This record gives sequence, structure tokens and C-alpha cells, in this order.
Amino acid sequence: MAKRLMFEKPLGMRDTLPFFYNQKKQARELLTEEISNFGYMFMDTPILEYYETVGEASATLDQQLFKLLDQQGHSLVLRPDMTAPIARVAASQLKRAEFPLRLAYDGPVFRAQQTEGGKPAQFEQVGTELIGDHSSYGDAEVIALLIRSLQRAGLQDFQITIGHVGYVRCFFKEILGDDDPALTEELMSYLYRKNHVGYQEAVKALPLHDEAKRALMGLLKLRGEDEVFDQSKSLARNQECLQAINELKQLYKILKQYQVEQYVSFDLNLISHMDYYTGILFEGYAPNLGSLLCNGGRYDQLLPSFQLNASATGFAIHLERLVEALAKQSNGDERIGILVDDDTFADGLKQAQDLRQEGKSVLLQHVDQVPDLQQFKAELVEAIYLTTGGGHDA
Amino acid sequence: MAKRLMFEKPLGMRDTLPFFYNQKKQARELLTEEISNFGYMFMDTPILEYYETVGEASATLDQQLFKLLDQQGHSLVLRPDMTAPIARVAASQLKRAEFPLRLAYDGPVFRAQQTEGGKPAQFEQVGTELIGDHSSYGDAEVIALLIRSLQRAGLQDFQITIGHVGYVRCFFKEILGDDDPALTEELMSYLYRKNHVGYQEAVKALPLHDEAKRALMGLLKLRGEDEVFDQSKSLARNQECLQAINELKQLYKILKQYQVEQYVSFDLNLISHMDYYTGILFEGYAPNLGSLLCNGGRYDQLLPSFQLNASATGFAIHLERLVEALAKQSNGDERIGILVDDDTFADGLKQAQDLRQEGKSVLLQHVDQVPDLQQFKAELVEAIYLTTGGGHDA
Repeated sequence: MAKRLMFEKPLGMRDTLPFFYNQKKQARELLTEEISNFGYMFMDTPILEYYETVGEASATLDQQLFKLLDQQGHSLVLRPDMTAPIARVAASQLKRAEFPLRLAYDGPVFRAQQTEGGKPAQFEQVGTELIGDHSSYGDAEVIALLIRSLQRAGLQDFQITIGHVGYVRCFFKEILGDDDPALTEELMSYLYRKNHVGYQEAVKALPLHDEAKRALMGLLKLRGEDEVFDQSKSLARNQECLQAINELKQLYKILKQYQVEQYVSFDLNLISHMDYYTGILFEGYAPNLGSLLCNGGRYDQLLPSFQLNASATGFAIHLERLVEALAKQSNGDERIGILVDDDTFADGLKQAQDLRQEGKSVLLQHVDQVPDLQQFKAELVEAIYLTTGGGHDA
Repeated sequence: MAKRLMFEKPLGMRDTLPFFYNQKKQARELLTEEISNFGYMFMDTPILEYYETVGEASATLDQQLFKLLDQQGHSLVLRPDMTAPIARVAASQLKRAEFPLRLAYDGPVFRAQQTEGGKPAQFEQVGTELIGDHSSYGDAEVIALLIRSLQRAGLQDFQITIGHVGYVRCFFKEILGDDDPALTEELMSYLYRKNHVGYQEAVKALPLHDEAKRALMGLLKLRGEDEVFDQSKSLARNQECLQAINELKQLYKILKQYQVEQYVSFDLNLISHMDYYTGILFEGYAPNLGSLLCNGGRYDQLLPSFQLNASATGFAIHLERLVEALAKQSNGDERIGILVDDDTFADGLKQAQDLRQEGKSVLLQHVDQVPDLQQFKAELVEAIYLTTGGGHDA
């Protein structure tokens, strides 16, 4: 084996050692319990998909896709998200199931890395898709379930910021008109990258009258509690904007019925993706976590691209980041060790079996195979010596 | 999107729909509980590894590896098994942990398919590695844990066949000598493919005296309970063969202490892999399952190839095949549905929350979004209508 690479992993790939594994497992179990409680059915899809199907339909940028050729010469991708594969299944094998469909998933997704920037190239998403329900109740259920899931996992402090991409599009249409779509895309791109300074400078440089500039600047202020609904009316008054605000109001009313409104705020310049979401969308953050914890929204164009005329909404939680946010204390290594020799093996086996019956994690170890007893013992909560001449040591 | 491929998946890739997903989940949880009870610590490694490290070290044939190039031009593989990646971690990040190491894993592995032959290109393995214990107690623990895990998962009828690759090699050495290694490889290759007819014909055609041919034919009969240990002595009597038989005897004695001997038989011509295992090895089968359920054994050359001087033994269970063997009845869709309209949503939400508190799987659905109420109801164990004019319907 080439020594150069012997212990190396590909860019952005990580091992999950037992301590972190157990933390992930615990968070995953709690999330999936809550999601199942809401009547969502878990499913899985393959790690490899055709580029032409799931690769192109996904929300992930092309340069972030892991691509490979199979032995038949087809372009494949490592799945970059679960939404597009689930849309594929919903539009084929589940086409005759009863709609609305409530589906959920948990598994690894992949993003190719250009350079080592500390970002993972593989990470685990736990998420849901509600397919075929285009009501505000659907939007609200998905957000309420996201909040309840994070609570169930033990996260106390987090915030879900909700926006509406339809509002942003119609806002720009009213202020800028239809003549210069590239300008709208440029301004939306600043918002997408959350570069508000860049947005403000671009707006200042535009050849527009003051009132229009004031409105464009005012968009950045439409963030906060439900007072933003009224504030928005002073900036744009077209029917589509009012319709979007009404959807958000209706959503907020239902979220109050779910009693989750304290986790929610609004941001009318939120753009989570340049052209994937079609209505209400949201992002979740936890304090002290530098990156996005979870996101989601309504995407009504994806299913039609698989020839299924259905709307959809869903969320995805970045599991490793949730574990980081939970910053839990150790619950990993609580193993009892029983050390035996040839004469005491039978006795040790019996003790181990009894303790395992009680649900304890018990390792049985022949003492001849342990190079350093003291260090071995240090990794156990309790060590039981059953060796000739040895006593009982707790 | 190209219509030709729209709903297609790459060769050998499969979707896991909710019913099968739940069966897998249940089996996985029971296996991992038992494995944890034996003091094994679960960990995970990335799906992508360097070909030069894990790809070359793995037991998988080169043409079965999924290979791809990363953006830096390195050859990568989708991990074909978990043993080589765990060896990499044991020899690097866990090098200073206390040995013997008890590690476990659960995750997808990959085998490229030349043609569509009904075999999965991705499947899930649950398994263990005991690293740094070269005693018979180590061998026995791994086999006993495999048996207990299968029992815990609910499998009643299965058989673990145990062999010893050291025995086979020394047997051929005694009968055939060292002069023609290609002949030994040819005969072992028949055994590896379980082609006993081919083996017999090859033996018949050999220019050997009758006694040697009788011994070579006799090897095929060394299958059954522990009586094969004595039978073996009439065929080969060199020290290494006797040593291998003694290891099997010692193993059997300990397996009886674990009280798992009824699941075990011996096969002294068992070869699970041409050159991976180095001592005791085993394969597990269940009736009515046409293919291998699980396998494992001792591999004492792998860790040294990662510069760690340690022996190792472990097993891997093919999870999808276990689920197939369990052939369990449905436990999937036990969801209660509450159907509401605008007026009854608040009431429905309260009922849903109460039922979810009891751990039930409850979906709450606005009735306007359901195209066919009768069919919708058919997929529920109970439907509660809270719509204007509607009654309570169980």
C-alpha cells in the first residue's frame, strides 16, 4: 500500500468515532420518533442516482455534485439531497398511494469540495416531505413539526425565520417592472448570499427615483415579528404581494394554534435558494452555531418536472450540526468489563450474561490478551477481575 | 429532463419504500442492541475512500469496486465493505485506545454490477470487529455474538458453518507438496466457488497415487458436527493441520459454554475468500434464503498492512437478507388520521397532540386537500372525521 495516502481520506470526508456516533444516534432517534408521531412514513433511496434525473432536478449547484461514470457509461451522481429522489419515487412507485403523502428520510447526502475549507463533503440529513397539500395547514404542519422535532431532540434555543419568495419576486416586479430581469436577479442574488451591504450599494447606484430606492432599501427592514405584515403594505401594494402576506398571516395564525410562535420570526427578504422554492420558505438557526441548522419550504415545480401535478413542502435538518448545537455531555462509554482467565471464563460468561439481561453493556475479556490492565480499566465504568489470585475490583 | 431515464435508477440500485424501511429498522435496532450489550462501540466511516488505501486493502474484487475520480484527480471508491475502513481508523485515530478494541458498524456498502443480475449494487451491513485478541475466546465471542444477534432479531432457524482456512492450506501442502502452488490454488478455487463436482473431476484427472486422491476426495466429507475433528486425522497428520483442528476444538468447547452449539456446524473445506482470512472463518445461512446471510472470520494480515501489529476477527450481517429471512408480517402502517376543516382544525390539533403524547402515529389532514376520502381512509388503522356535518368514524 502506498504510504503517502495510507491513513488519508478524500477531501471533506470524515470518520465518526464512537463518542460522536452515539450523540448522533441519540439525536436521530428523537427526531425520527417525533416525525413518525406526526404520521410521516420513513423511506430511503439509493446513494447513487442518474445525473440526468435526480442530479439535474436537485437544488444543488452543478459544481457541488459528485459525478462518476458507471460501467455502462452513464453519468451518475452521489445524491446531493433527498428531496429530488423522493419526488422521483412519489411520482412513480407511490403515484397510486393516497395523497397527500407524508414521507420522511434520514441518510447521507454529498457535496463535492473544490478546496479544503472545513466543510463536510458528506453529511446526514433528517427531513420530511408533505406532497399534495397546498394549504397553509400544510405549510404550518411542516414548520410546527420541525420545531417539535428540534425540541424533542433537546434543543432549547433556536429560531425559525420564515419568508416568502413569491413576495420578494412580486415586490421587485412592482418597483423595477418587467424590463430588466437581470437586475432583479442581481438584487435577489445579494439577498440570497445575505450580502446586505452589497445590496444597498447596488440599490444606491441604480438610476431610479428616490421613492423606488426607499422601497428597495425598506425591504431589508421587513424582519421581525408579525408587525412586518403591516409594515410591508407601505412598500408594495400589488395583489400578488398582498396574497403572499395573507398566506404568511394565515400561516402565523395556525402556528399559534400549534403553540410554536415563540420560535418563529419573519424575514421578507429571505431567499434560501435562487430558483427552487416557490412560496413560503424558512431557515433555522441556533445561537453559537455559525451555520444553517435546518431549512425548507414550498417547492411546487419539482413534482411537475417528474410529470406529477402536485405541490410539496418539507424541511431538512443537518444532523451533525444539530449534535454540535446540542453540545451534550458524554453519554458514550458506560461499559462494564469482566476480565477472566481459562479457569474463570465460565463464571465470567455467566456474570456477563446476567448483566446483559439487565440491558447493561458488558465486555468479557481474557486477561492474557490485554497489554495494559490499568489503561484498559480506565475506559470502563467498572472492571470485574475474575482471574486466579485476582479479587473483585469496582 | 430527459424522459428516457426519468424514473430510472442506476444498475442494481433500489428504493426502500416505507414498509420495507420499517422492517429493516426493526431488525437493525435489535441487532445493534445485542451488539452494544456485548460492549462493542459503534462508529462510522465515510462512503468515499481513496482507492489506494481502502480500495486495495479490501476483500472485494477489483472489478466489483465503484471507482470515480475526485476533482483533484485521485482515484476514489465507494466503500465495498467496512472492515478495511475500520482497520484504517483502528491503526490511526484509535491507535492509542486500549486494545483489544471492540468496534461495530452499520451502513451501506457497494458492489459495482457488470450486468443486471438481480443483485443489489448497494446493501446494508451490520457487523463487528474485535481487534487485538488472537485467542479462541475472541473467535468464540464473535461467533456467539453473531448467533445471539440473529436470535435477538427474531431469526429462529439458521446455521453457522465454521471452517479453518489454515487447515485447508496445510492439508493441500501435505498431500500435494510445495511444488505446484497453481494446482493448490486451482483446487481451492473450486472449493471457494462451492463447485464440488468440478473439484472431484479435477482430482480424478490428477497424476497422483490412489491414496492421495482418496485423501483429496475425503476432504469434501469433513462436514458436520464435532465428529469431523477425529475424522480429519485419517486424512492429514502434519503439525499445522493438528494445530488448526485443536483451535476448532477449543472454539467448540467455548461455544458450548455460550450455549450456542446447536446453531453451529463444521466444514473443513469451507473457503469464504481466496486470500483474506487467515484462520477460523464462518458463513451463516437460513433455510429458504438462497444466498449468504452473514459471514466472517479471522484476518490477521489486514491490520499489519496499515502498520498496526494486531490480529482481528469479525462478522458482517447482510441486513436486507436478514429481513427477507425474517419474512415478518406487516407492522408498518398503523397510523391514525384526523380529518379537519377550517372550523374544526383547533379541535383536531388538540386531539392529535393528545394521541401523539401517547406515542401514537397521528396525521392531521385538512379535508379539502384529500382527493379521495375512502381510499385515504383505507390506508389508516383509524380515521377520525371532525368536519362540519361529519361524525366520528373508526
